[in-house]
Amino acid sequence: MEGLVMKTCEGPVNIAVIKYWGKRNDELILPMNDSLSVTLHVDHLRSRTTIACSPVFKEDEFWLNGKPFPINERMRTCIEEAKKHISEEKKELSKYKLRICSENNFATAAGLASSAAGFACLVYCLAQVYGIDEKVVDLTILARRGSGSACRSIYGGFVWWQKGTSDDGHDSKAVQVASEARWPELRAVILVVSHKQKDVSSKDGMKRSRETSQLLHFRSKQIVQQRIESMIKAINAKDFDAFAEITMKESNQFHAVALDTFPPCFYMNDVSRNVIDLVNKYNAYKVDMGSSTRYSAAYTFDAGPNACIYLQDKDLSEFLSIIVSSFPSIEKEYVRGLPVEVVSSSVDIFPKHAPGALDYIICTKVGPGPRVIESDHLLNPDGSFKV
Amino acid sequence: MEGLVMKTCEGPVNIAVIKYWGKRNDELILPMNDSLSVTLHVDHLRSRTTIACSPVFKEDEFWLNGKPFPINERMRTCIEEAKKHISEEKKELSKYKLRICSENNFATAAGLASSAAGFACLVYCLAQVYGIDEKVVDLTILARRGSGSACRSIYGGFVWWQKGTSDDGHDSKAVQVASEARWPELRAVILVVSHKQKDVSSKDGMKRSRETSQLLHFRSKQIVQQRIESMIKAINAKDFDAFAEITMKESNQFHAVALDTFPPCFYMNDVSRNVIDLVNKYNAYKVDMGSSTRYSAAYTFDAGPNACIYLQDKDLSEFLSIIVSSFPSIEKEYVRGLPVEVVSSSVDIFPKHAPGALDYIICTKVGPGPRVIESDHLLNPDGSFKV
Repeated sequence: MEGLVMKTCEGPVNIAVIKYWGKRNDELILPMNDSLSVTLHVDHLRSRTTIACSPVFKEDEFWLNGKPFPINERMRTCIEEAKKHISEEKKELSKYKLRICSENNFATAAGLASSAAGFACLVYCLAQVYGIDEKVVDLTILARRGSGSACRSIYGGFVWWQKGTSDDGHDSKAVQVASEARWPELRAVILVVSHKQKDVSSKDGMKRSRETSQLLHFRSKQIVQQRIESMIKAINAKDFDAFAEITMKESNQFHAVALDTFPPCFYMNDVSRNVIDLVNKYNAYKVDMGSSTRYSAAYTFDAGPNACIYLQDKDLSEFLSIIVSSFPSIEKEYVRGLPVEVVSSSVDIFPKHAPGALDYIICTKVGPGPRVIESDHLLNPDGSFKV
Repeated sequence: MEGLVMKTCEGPVNIAVIKYWGKRNDELILPMNDSLSVTLHVDHLRSRTTIACSPVFKEDEFWLNGKPFPINERMRTCIEEAKKHISEEKKELSKYKLRICSENNFATAAGLASSAAGFACLVYCLAQVYGIDEKVVDLTILARRGSGSACRSIYGGFVWWQKGTSDDGHDSKAVQVASEARWPELRAVILVVSHKQKDVSSKDGMKRSRETSQLLHFRSKQIVQQRIESMIKAINAKDFDAFAEITMKESNQFHAVALDTFPPCFYMNDVSRNVIDLVNKYNAYKVDMGSSTRYSAAYTFDAGPNACIYLQDKDLSEFLSIIVSSFPSIEKEYVRGLPVEVVSSSVDIFPKHAPGALDYIICTKVGPGPRVIESDHLLNPDGSFKV
């Protein structure tokens, strides 16, 4: 079609090991403290977005997972901010209307960081369409305006969101601590918990925490910065013991702050607690078996009951075998993602839970940042929606 | 029997509204912060202890709930400390061996403050046997040596455990803020949760929190004292809104600290969360119905999943009817304690949970301190155990 520009990109999920909870500015999405995350591989968890713009489009339109949605305020902010940085030779495009089509290859809003992947992908794709110069414009700042943690999905590997100190947010940005090549043995196992209760949204929860939890203010002022430094050291040294201990303590403290909120926010449930118990028992078992490290697996939970377990390649098959035995499946495709050998576990010291407590399991590893893809567009070649 | 002295006493349970968690001295049981509790009525929840001493007894012996147990170190401490204060005319008795027989009319170690009631009762009963002058000797300090929170069960009504500052613990004692007559309309409903998981004991949990939770240290230094002052004001003014809000925030924060501990301590489970949710919904419902107070009920949880709900007499029947409808019984004697009319609830806005989530319910009110009883001795008149 005459004048049609179309790009398709994929963006990754990230799971924080130092948690973001609490904004100092709601509109600009400026956090109370720094955070740090691991970018998971787009081969297994990803948002995909196609953006087309054309002089013939009558209005901006948005589809998510096959259904039309209105363009919300945060998307609008990202689009308008991106247009400010459009390249000279593409200036004309800023007058055209957009068609945006997105989908996730995992359950949206299941506590799997879908908004982080979605907004990172949207901003990265807008940058391709508008020819934005990444050397001049920090895409992490653009992505942050859509969803705070989205700024961390602009890079692969290990990513540090620096809260910044300015009121306008120009220094609240993400930087890469180390690429995915730094620690290729690191693995992440996502345990998707069944029967979720309706949760308080992250946005509402963190607002309520800021207003009511004294522990949150103490944590962000007095505890987080030291943990960021220790975590960066742990990553650079590939020190799994330090990485695991900080990760678990951070998860615990984030949920402690959620609980100190009034009324309290509960994100973990009894299945989450059983997962923590299993990880603790697994770590103790490995020490008994002669492991040279104190920890072999580390749990972390975001604002929902699903667990993300970090561990190293050497332990993946054994750990998964234990998980599958301890949390039996009622699903066929129970273990997804990276191919892993799951054997019938010979170790019988772990508790057996009722079948179906977990919906499914995704195995993945540290991955790269967003990428352009040349096929699998979500819009037809003429820019029309695929119905 | 020649020379036999025998006394029987009853001691109450107390449930803290400002929580005790963390010791600054393990041996003397000196707490990191002040705490404040409500003494529940001995008519419904109580420890009973008979102590006999006689020149013919060959050794100290102890029976609990009908079974012989060794006298543990903390009991031994209470006995030895009590003997130091024996009255002049009873000096002879300090050479005699003791028979101690105790029982609770509620499940021991079910997270129902059995050790507080038990040690308060033991110390009070020792004071009767040994003729200790309560004007000279502070029994709350003696009881504290048995179990920290036991010092608060030495008084009825509303009781404040002042942490003290001295190293020898002579100023770490409980005082009565107001007697049970101050707020006769106050009620407490204990919801006993079924299927408890094995918990980390309070003793071990609070040690681990002190060693690993930065949030605990912040809380005890920076938050608790202000809450104590506000709570004392609330009690003196019979201000249920203030009482309820501090009570719920304290419960939340105590469990937040338990979760910030490493490895984390979980004391609430999904049923506890459902109870919190119901209390929040009930409070919102009452506001909708025109209640002049923001809160009509307040939850608090100790180191276990059981809930204690504080509310006022005027709401008791309605609230219980809602609880019984929301958490259906599989037990016959579901509601125990104070007689309350439970009607089939006409309000259908509260969630219905699976039958049997709660074991049973105890209704009670604010009550007096320990008392001597003249009948129902747990030992035979000759001092022998009832087998």
